[in-house]
Amino acid sequence: MWGGRFSAQPGALMQAINVCIDYDQKLAPQDIRGSKAHASMLAAQKIITEEDCLAIHKGLDEILEEIESGTFPFKPELEDIHLNVENRLKEKIGDAAGRLHTGRSRNDQVATDFRLWVRDYLDLFDALLINLQSALLGQADQHADTIMPGFTHLQSAQPVTFGHHMMAYLEMFARDRSRFADCRQRMNESPLGAAALAGTPYPIDRDATTKALEFDRPMANSLDAVSARDFALEALAAASICATHLSRLSEEIVIWTSAQFQFISLSDEFTTGSSIMPQKRNPDAAELVRAKVGRIVGALTSLTIVMKGLPLAYSKDMQEDKEPVFDAFEALELGLAAMAGMVNDMTPNKESLAGAAGAAFSTATDLADWLVMSLNMPFRDAHHVTGRVVALAEKQGKTLDKMDLADLQSVEPHITDDIYRVLSPLASANSRTSYGGTAPSEVKKQVERWKKALG
Amino acid sequence: MWGGRFSAQPGALMQAINVCIDYDQKLAPQDIRGSKAHASMLAAQKIITEEDCLAIHKGLDEILEEIESGTFPFKPELEDIHLNVENRLKEKIGDAAGRLHTGRSRNDQVATDFRLWVRDYLDLFDALLINLQSALLGQADQHADTIMPGFTHLQSAQPVTFGHHMMAYLEMFARDRSRFADCRQRMNESPLGAAALAGTPYPIDRDATTKALEFDRPMANSLDAVSARDFALEALAAASICATHLSRLSEEIVIWTSAQFQFISLSDEFTTGSSIMPQKRNPDAAELVRAKVGRIVGALTSLTIVMKGLPLAYSKDMQEDKEPVFDAFEALELGLAAMAGMVNDMTPNKESLAGAAGAAFSTATDLADWLVMSLNMPFRDAHHVTGRVVALAEKQGKTLDKMDLADLQSVEPHITDDIYRVLSPLASANSRTSYGGTAPSEVKKQVERWKKALG
Amino acid sequence: MWGGRFSAQPGALMQAINVCIDYDQKLAPQDIRGSKAHASMLAAQKIITEEDCLAIHKGLDEILEEIESGTFPFKPELEDIHLNVENRLKEKIGDAAGRLHTGRSRNDQVATDFRLWVRDYLDLFDALLINLQSALLGQADQHADTIMPGFTHLQSAQPVTFGHHMMAYLEMFARDRSRFADCRQRMNESPLGAAALAGTPYPIDRDATTKALEFDRPMANSLDAVSARDFALEALAAASICATHLSRLSEEIVIWTSAQFQFISLSDEFTTGSSIMPQKRNPDAAELVRAKVGRIVGALTSLTIVMKGLPLAYSKDMQEDKEPVFDAFEALELGLAAMAGMVNDMTPNKESLAGAAGAAFSTATDLADWLVMSLNMPFRDAHHVTGRVVALAEKQGKTLDKMDLADLQSVEPHITDDIYRVLSPLASANSRTSYGGTAPSEVKKQVERWKKALG
Amino acid sequence: MWGGRFSAQPGALMQAINVCIDYDQKLAPQDIRGSKAHASMLAAQKIITEEDCLAIHKGLDEILEEIESGTFPFKPELEDIHLNVENRLKEKIGDAAGRLHTGRSRNDQVATDFRLWVRDYLDLFDALLINLQSALLGQADQHADTIMPGFTHLQSAQPVTFGHHMMAYLEMFARDRSRFADCRQRMNESPLGAAALAGTPYPIDRDATTKALEFDRPMANSLDAVSARDFALEALAAASICATHLSRLSEEIVIWTSAQFQFISLSDEFTTGSSIMPQKRNPDAAELVRAKVGRIVGALTSLTIVMKGLPLAYSKDMQEDKEPVFDAFEALELGLAAMAGMVNDMTPNKESLAGAAGAAFSTATDLADWLVMSLNMPFRDAHHVTGRVVALAEKQGKTLDKMDLADLQSVEPHITDDIYRVLSPLASANSRTSYGGTAPSEVKKQVERWKKALG
Repeated sequence: MWGGRFSAQPGALMQAINVCIDYDQKLAPQDIRGSKAHASMLAAQKIITEEDCLAIHKGLDEILEEIESGTFPFKPELEDIHLNVENRLKEKIGDAAGRLHTGRSRNDQVATDFRLWVRDYLDLFDALLINLQSALLGQADQHADTIMPGFTHLQSAQPVTFGHHMMAYLEMFARDRSRFADCRQRMNESPLGAAALAGTPYPIDRDATTKALEFDRPMANSLDAVSARDFALEALAAASICATHLSRLSEEIVIWTSAQFQFISLSDEFTTGSSIMPQKRNPDAAELVRAKVGRIVGALTSLTIVMKGLPLAYSKDMQEDKEPVFDAFEALELGLAAMAGMVNDMTPNKESLAGAAGAAFSTATDLADWLVMSLNMPFRDAHHVTGRVVALAEKQGKTLDKMDLADLQSVEPHITDDIYRVLSPLASANSRTSYGGTAPSEVKKQVERWKKALG
Repeated sequence: MWGGRFSAQPGALMQAINVCIDYDQKLAPQDIRGSKAHASMLAAQKIITEEDCLAIHKGLDEILEEIESGTFPFKPELEDIHLNVENRLKEKIGDAAGRLHTGRSRNDQVATDFRLWVRDYLDLFDALLINLQSALLGQADQHADTIMPGFTHLQSAQPVTFGHHMMAYLEMFARDRSRFADCRQRMNESPLGAAALAGTPYPIDRDATTKALEFDRPMANSLDAVSARDFALEALAAASICATHLSRLSEEIVIWTSAQFQFISLSDEFTTGSSIMPQKRNPDAAELVRAKVGRIVGALTSLTIVMKGLPLAYSKDMQEDKEPVFDAFEALELGLAAMAGMVNDMTPNKESLAGAAGAAFSTATDLADWLVMSLNMPFRDAHHVTGRVVALAEKQGKTLDKMDLADLQSVEPHITDDIYRVLSPLASANSRTSYGGTAPSEVKKQVERWKKALG
Repeated sequence: MWGGRFSAQPGALMQAINVCIDYDQKLAPQDIRGSKAHASMLAAQKIITEEDCLAIHKGLDEILEEIESGTFPFKPELEDIHLNVENRLKEKIGDAAGRLHTGRSRNDQVATDFRLWVRDYLDLFDALLINLQSALLGQADQHADTIMPGFTHLQSAQPVTFGHHMMAYLEMFARDRSRFADCRQRMNESPLGAAALAGTPYPIDRDATTKALEFDRPMANSLDAVSARDFALEALAAASICATHLSRLSEEIVIWTSAQFQFISLSDEFTTGSSIMPQKRNPDAAELVRAKVGRIVGALTSLTIVMKGLPLAYSKDMQEDKEPVFDAFEALELGLAAMAGMVNDMTPNKESLAGAAGAAFSTATDLADWLVMSLNMPFRDAHHVTGRVVALAEKQGKTLDKMDLADLQSVEPHITDDIYRVLSPLASANSRTSYGGTAPSEVKKQVERWKKALG
Repeated sequence: MWGGRFSAQPGALMQAINVCIDYDQKLAPQDIRGSKAHASMLAAQKIITEEDCLAIHKGLDEILEEIESGTFPFKPELEDIHLNVENRLKEKIGDAAGRLHTGRSRNDQVATDFRLWVRDYLDLFDALLINLQSALLGQADQHADTIMPGFTHLQSAQPVTFGHHMMAYLEMFARDRSRFADCRQRMNESPLGAAALAGTPYPIDRDATTKALEFDRPMANSLDAVSARDFALEALAAASICATHLSRLSEEIVIWTSAQFQFISLSDEFTTGSSIMPQKRNPDAAELVRAKVGRIVGALTSLTIVMKGLPLAYSKDMQEDKEPVFDAFEALELGLAAMAGMVNDMTPNKESLAGAAGAAFSTATDLADWLVMSLNMPFRDAHHVTGRVVALAEKQGKTLDKMDLADLQSVEPHITDDIYRVLSPLASANSRTSYGGTAPSEVKKQVERWKKALG
């Protein structure tokens, strides 16, 4: 297959390893935006003429149109997006194109482009996360009092509500939004004007380009400006954590849609079937979202390794910074959109959920708590009594709330029928009114709070 | 070596895999602090008596003393720190010990302890980073005009100053501090009161424990409170990025102390020698700091994998959350402290630095810029002229600033002796006065700004 | 907490970062074994006297006894295991101790020790994997015809047998063994004699030490001998893959023991309960084994990052090679032992398994295949007919094997009662007699093959 | 930018996340090869007619031609390569196309395709590694006695030869080849015939397809056959380790080509320059190869995370298995080819190397060894004497081999002029004749051994 493709021709080999235009062309809109801002500043500072500036703007606008319409003649021999654009600009406007590069270098240029690209995606993530939160909020609103088992170790532990469960994810995604927002704020500073690495003797105005590109401030050290990639690592880390959350919810969807659980159902929109088994609904989308965390964490690992031990200021290793970010962010975009779709699409199966919530003596803790609170029984004794009651219930094949009072009293004579207030799953959930607890009243409060927050 | 150690005894095996007291005893101070806050709240809410509360506080204080003095009788069969403390408390104060656990579960307890531990370390990192920034600032202040080569591709590109180089790292570590601060703020919320997963029917006051433990707010969803570990992932990610910065500076120290570079020297404090080669100074500390990034990123990978696909609320997998964090944070602590020590310790070798800065025609860019700015020559022509001048200099075996004016004019007649204003490395650096540039005047401005910021 | 612990004392700091005796003392048996082999060779080559050699052996034997009995006086200021042993030897036998180091350096010494340690663990893994395979084989033997659903997407797809499922894991662990064996063979070569990095002028006999330490051959390049750590990376990679297999089986155990699946039950030996819910059985061991993959992959990532970009021959970074390996291997040891215990312990619930296998029209494929094979129907038509039969079955609330022949014929008149030969889950499984298929007859063949292989 | 691209249309979203034809079309040759083998077997077993078989072969051959010539009409709505080929085949040959899928499923089909693809790449890696080894061998042959400093901690430790250094890498790459070979052998087994997961009732002949596809054996468990991806993980792990080796050599090339080291020079073929600084040669290719390890380890991390905790047999998560492998393998291909090119291209600078080798009293160890061997001085005393000699040399500003005998004797009167036999770097290297040592005579032996091995 390979047949010495490269061996005889170092030139072809060098080009093959050096070229990045096949992926860094994604930066074209950012590259052109940055160049226009730079040109305007150069003109304002009288470093280039207004005439040149106008020509540059016009030429770049045409180039962007060509790129967007798919007619731009990309040339691999020009290696990257910057040279492709620059070369095309020269074809269009002649010598003025050369002046665009005054007081700038490819090092600060690519750093600027990449920051703009990442910033755009951080904004997109915020929109997608709001979308996903809204979907979760919708389910929570509708199912604030839909009882389901709360699990530890995938074993039923205590009854909770479906709404409460949805809201747990909403909180996680809120923190993800907050992480992306912090990342955006920290990284939103302009490297433009750092030039190759040392700044420039031209009387440039970094505040002007900073403002034009909607950065918050210029970076304060030119070496740092061209060599820093921590903004990309941080964005990848935030994406990884968010993907971990997606993987947890995906796992639950896969388990919940199994024939054994039947906690929720998904429509055909997010499942695939089989011509031969028409009832089959494979949760393909949930599985694919679950898998995305691999790709995103892999990208973080990848870029971290690239950056390990790199001396200042610019090393060619850093050309390997973009692909992992591009790939990871597109994966997260898809994952977030698909998850919002699934959450909107899912229908909880109330019957299964309630059945499961009532099984496994899931209100045993409530019984013990009642003994402590109502009979003032020491904790340890209450546990002991509860264990004996559960054993009896198991023997009788009954759930706790279906046991006769006499039987309960046979274990502990002071039990009264007030006990039934806490023994059903719903009663159990209703009782957990501590702040953030699963009581439907509490869940509804949280839902209202978030309705306001999400607008 | 193993010889069926576990095979015949499932009990021993189960204990071996389950036990965590050998490492989670690090949480003892946090565990006791959390328990005291919980007990006080229970008493204030009349859930337990004041008497019990006092006994609990007294017992816990004694236990902390025992642990700190190394006399606490840790028992592996009690598995974790919580049970060890609880059991010891029972030995000391009897039944009241059992009441401490009212309205609380091991799930919210361990989440609280772990957050407190991480928060303490985030505060430590801030202190260590300030320390390191101060060391860098000290060097920058002293060497704001010490000329050295600025590198790209480990090849001399343009002259910069040693102070400018130090300040680049100061900026990176500033962002690291900012990342840790954001992480601290986001994670500083209390899971205490979430109980096992669903909240509790006891009339607890989560605001009270939140305040007592200096958290900013209680977590708003009990399922989330016990199942979230994104705070640990975020802290590890920030630590990884910081370690990447340390690895870059370490790499430079290793290269700079080589016999070939001799850019800086380190004292015996941070190097190791050889009895046989007394002049040898191995930069062991820098190498060890460089390596720490492996361990820290490994920890991040580890915990991410543990959390992937875990259903809510608590799975035993999460017991594997603490060791990677403990190990990574202790590694970063050491790395930060050692790096501050090295930065304080290093002596730049001005002669070597200046010599290297002047080599390789490192002011060629300045020549070209002069042609553009002073002769209004088009960029492309300026490059052409510069290339020819450099070729001539190479032939003459001279650096650019040592060339005769006549020779310069032989290439381009309009060159005047004003050119010498930019041809020396120092002149080159002096000229780069754009904001954040390497001009000593600019570096000094940044130094002053940071002197104020660091106090 | 930190309070300037290191800041004022670079010496303490350097020691803190340099010291490794707290973990590398694990290498003591290997270190002593290597030293004895080296001493014997030196004596045989007349480089040291027989007398010295005897003293060295005797001294080292005593030291090993001290270490094993816990009486060895480890000194942190001596940093590592090599210096601790060497120093102790000097205390015991005086000057002869110094001669032990002739023609050897710490660089080849530690490489030798570490290889011996890893090799021992690879042998242990083989034993543990055989143990685990035997457990799986035992279950497969007993349940070669216990019907269960075969899943895709956690949805029932086709009936398989429990034995077949167990044998799938047995095959995976067979490849893990094979990977460890290949790794052992590749890494079983001796670095001893490479000295610091360049070999030695002493007339040493590397074949002799190679043989004494049961290596297969001496390493052929001294630089490579001291700088290579790919053996550790490979061992970690094999461990990671093995841990992935453990995580898959663990996940199945967690799901299978859920109240919703009830496919298997585990005894108290490998589950934990609750005093309050006596029937609860949390699969803690399975969850902990599942989590181990995080730690092991983290270790691989860690060491890979350490080794990235290290120049030859020895850098201090490489001191960070041992802890990840120690930690990962101990984790895998525990995981393998615990999994073997769980597999032996698990009891399949035949009823649940059979019930689930029969649900979801899991023999629809068999029906289609029958139509193709018996009626020579084109594939596509067979699928179409099957879909209609399944739809009818769903309407009737019956499984396929319970449908009336007339009803089947109402969809496709050529169907005969031969069809019932394939419609039950057991019939389906029985029919899949292709090599490696799930037919109990095939499973039994594989069981027999493995009984022989495992002895 | 995103503007609700997916939000309103779950169908578009599901397709976006599900589609893999844009990358899995790389599997086309393998897919077609596998299908042809399957069809031939079906015909031989009389499961389909010879006529159908011929039509299938002819149709598939045409399709392969279409794909290779770029005329194949890929359709995203058909999602993957299998359906695209199958559908196209139906267009070409009608109903017979449907029969190709008899006794096969997409699950075993994709497993087969992917194994064939990986196997092809493993073979390519072997060829590329031989190529790289040959380049190293060529340099070693030419420079078996070119003296250079051997480094520890990037500090000169003892003289070695350039050839010896090259051979160290040759040994590493030999182990990489061996790892790929073991991986190939282990993974070269056929999943074809496992069908969906349980095998098939059709009388297929798995040995026949195994043979036709040059596999060594059929996989023995159908569940394992479709769910195993450890072969891909192992191949990625071997690639990661190999990439670590490339990163080490790349790092050395970057350091060696710095102006400060000047140990080697690279031609324009593997460096990039600057129009303005014509003498500048940036080692871009070496930096890019160094960075590749990030991408490859990232891919390993990625797939490991995907596979963590996946239940048998097939989950859609596994669709994420191919991209990391494709990307990593193409990166390694490029890295290996580029490195071979650079090694062939590099010219060692004998003068710089020799100068550096002679500096830093790099033969101090030789002096000590001479004292031990020639004067029978105890090791410790020899070290003491050496330290004093080095101190004197430093004071005199001389290297050891340039010191007067009288001066040497002033430190130790028994020193004779035989000492000069070992004091020069070349003498030092010549003396290290232990097996695998750096003595040119030893290096040449290794070169000869490898000349035979590489043919």
